[in-house]
Amino acid sequence: MKGAVELSRRHPMASWLCAMLHCFGSYILADLLLGEPLIDYFSNNSSILLASAVWYLIFFCPLDLFYKCVCFLPVKLIFVAMKEVVRVRKIAVGIHHAHHHYHHGWFVMIATGWVKGSGVALMSNFEQLLRGVWKPETNEILHMSFPTKASLYGAILFTLQQTRWLPVSKATLIFIFTMFMVSCKVFLTATHSHSSPFDVLESYICPVLFGSDWGGNHHLDNHGGSQGGSGPGSPHSLPTKSKEELSEGSRKKKTKKAD
Amino acid sequence: MKGAVELSRRHPMASWLCAMLHCFGSYILADLLLGEPLIDYFSNNSSILLASAVWYLIFFCPLDLFYKCVCFLPVKLIFVAMKEVVRVRKIAVGIHHAHHHYHHGWFVMIATGWVKGSGVALMSNFEQLLRGVWKPETNEILHMSFPTKASLYGAILFTLQQTRWLPVSKATLIFIFTMFMVSCKVFLTATHSHSSPFDVLESYICPVLFGSDWGGNHHLDNHGGSQGGSGPGSPHSLPTKSKEELSEGSRKKKTKKAD
Amino acid sequence: MKGAVELSRRHPMASWLCAMLHCFGSYILADLLLGEPLIDYFSNNSSILLASAVWYLIFFCPLDLFYKCVCFLPVKLIFVAMKEVVRVRKIAVGIHHAHHHYHHGWFVMIATGWVKGSGVALMSNFEQLLRGVWKPETNEILHMSFPTKASLYGAILFTLQQTRWLPVSKATLIFIFTMFMVSCKVFLTATHSHSSPFDVLESYICPVLFGSDWGGNHHLDNHGGSQGGSGPGSPHSLPTKSKEELSEGSRKKKTKKAD
Repeated sequence: MKGAVELSRRHPMASWLCAMLHCFGSYILADLLLGEPLIDYFSNNSSILLASAVWYLIFFCPLDLFYKCVCFLPVKLIFVAMKEVVRVRKIAVGIHHAHHHYHHGWFVMIATGWVKGSGVALMSNFEQLLRGVWKPETNEILHMSFPTKASLYGAILFTLQQTRWLPVSKATLIFIFTMFMVSCKVFLTATHSHSSPFDVLESYICPVLFGSDWGGNHHLDNHGGSQGGSGPGSPHSLPTKSKEELSEGSRKKKTKKAD
Repeated sequence: MKGAVELSRRHPMASWLCAMLHCFGSYILADLLLGEPLIDYFSNNSSILLASAVWYLIFFCPLDLFYKCVCFLPVKLIFVAMKEVVRVRKIAVGIHHAHHHYHHGWFVMIATGWVKGSGVALMSNFEQLLRGVWKPETNEILHMSFPTKASLYGAILFTLQQTRWLPVSKATLIFIFTMFMVSCKVFLTATHSHSSPFDVLESYICPVLFGSDWGGNHHLDNHGGSQGGSGPGSPHSLPTKSKEELSEGSRKKKTKKAD
Repeated sequence: MKGAVELSRRHPMASWLCAMLHCFGSYILADLLLGEPLIDYFSNNSSILLASAVWYLIFFCPLDLFYKCVCFLPVKLIFVAMKEVVRVRKIAVGIHHAHHHYHHGWFVMIATGWVKGSGVALMSNFEQLLRGVWKPETNEILHMSFPTKASLYGAILFTLQQTRWLPVSKATLIFIFTMFMVSCKVFLTATHSHSSPFDVLESYICPVLFGSDWGGNHHLDNHGGSQGGSGPGSPHSLPTKSKEELSEGSRKKKTKKAD
């Protein structure tokens, strides 16, 4: 988080709140969906104190010793692995919790598992707003990162398991999915890669289902720039370009749709 | 929704979520007001699956056959009429639900009925944000469309009926208001008109109450540009122009208030 | 609220909603945190009617008589003092309410007290959005006003008192803190000052804890511009400037961090 150091010096309250959102955003979003107090998880004083202590050490430790330790690659990879273990556990617990309230609410379970796994990424616009940054042209739904996609797929798998459609035990699914997430994330972190293990699979399925790559081409930014592929529906029969996208002016040119 | 086709090709998840907001936004807003789980309505798997199927057919049907069918004017008018029937029913149910929780909460009932009738329009800024569009200079409160205004007036009428101030039965009021909404909306859709049946009434009442037309002149955009009419209060006695509005810069000039 | 008169003439609904947010925003935020209906306070019809009457008189009274009365300095100072009495009471009640739900939730109590005391200020971005104004570069967390800071400190004190760590009675604490708030706010209003009684204290504590003044230099705007002071951590060892802040382009230049 470049620029975060300056934020912590000049606006430590905003910096601390952002850190808390990054740590506990998943609980806040899940509580919002399920109608529970948003602040419920903040009643765990020890978790909040631990997170606050880590925040303080990251930003204010003399000579940045703590930050340098955490950034040392072997140590970083351990934390990355631990984070994925926690993520998978959160997804499983979230779906179990939603199942408790809505026994047959498939979409409820998937949504709860998804927000528990993705956490603050799904409210990135508002976390940035807290820091005085506003980038409406992109968000985690338009351009899903690997953890967010994986959380969605995991939520679907865990929901199928919870509703007995997937004939594996919960422990087995947690183990397999955790191994998958840990190995992917550790590999991506170690190689500084931004690709996703799902790209290959999506490049076959998405053109069939949706007529183009899901998520589009990231370097073209947002929604616009290139035509969709040869999917089921033809985009050519709808009229003119969007006034809305024209008014985004200086950001990009859009390919005109022929009538 | 121009540009929606491209969104559906490049970002189907965002497109689907927007469609769900358009279908079920009223339930989400009402649940938010009444402290119930936002995701409650999503436990109706059949409704979600039906809405998803319609979304898929609209955007991905070969040769856009489904879209062309739905856009064929006679068919479109039938759907417009059905939508108004559902809207009025939602308002009535919403007020009944709010009355159950707050027997004497007049404002609570009106607000609940209003959000049930208006739906996603009241959170249009955030629905657009989901698609990567941000237009803060306008929203449904500043520039109320006919359905939103009608939902507000309907909510007031249904609240008066619920609290026995309006001496008609609920069934009669539902019938009359539905007939009004269906005929207005079908007429406006058939004539491609953007006017509102309330304009005449408001042009008499609002200058008396508020000193100008409610909603201002839409083509002048947002808040600013022209003086209010000869209303009860004089706008001339407050000092200087707003720094806030000056900083909106290129949008409009404001009339200076003389000290 | 300059420009508010024009808003009330052209968009009275938006003007009224903003006024309601200003009056009851604290209750809405506290209800959001504690999982209660956001609209709960709006069931107090008399409070809403009173607030609406005051709103109408402020904006639509002939010759602005009501506004001129309220703005007359001695009268204004009385209202300022009354507002601080209500603020302190809201903080105390909020913490008591949170304590009832979370007996040992220190952070929950502090947060609830803080939002009860600060009110609409903490959601200023969204209150402005309702009026068609969007200023993401600043918010009440980045640049805390005196009432917001005082509400935070007060919430901490009241939480310490509620959990028996501060050995004073609740009545005594309410009295002392009210006297402090009333005298500060009356003095600041009478002298048209923008300083804060906390500045001196913070100028000693914050460089030690955070390496610079908390809240930074307001006239440098947002987060950027100057280096932090000689705090515990050195900001010099982290690489390059923030791409995020570069992309804020025309707003300010940032000091480059030497590697």
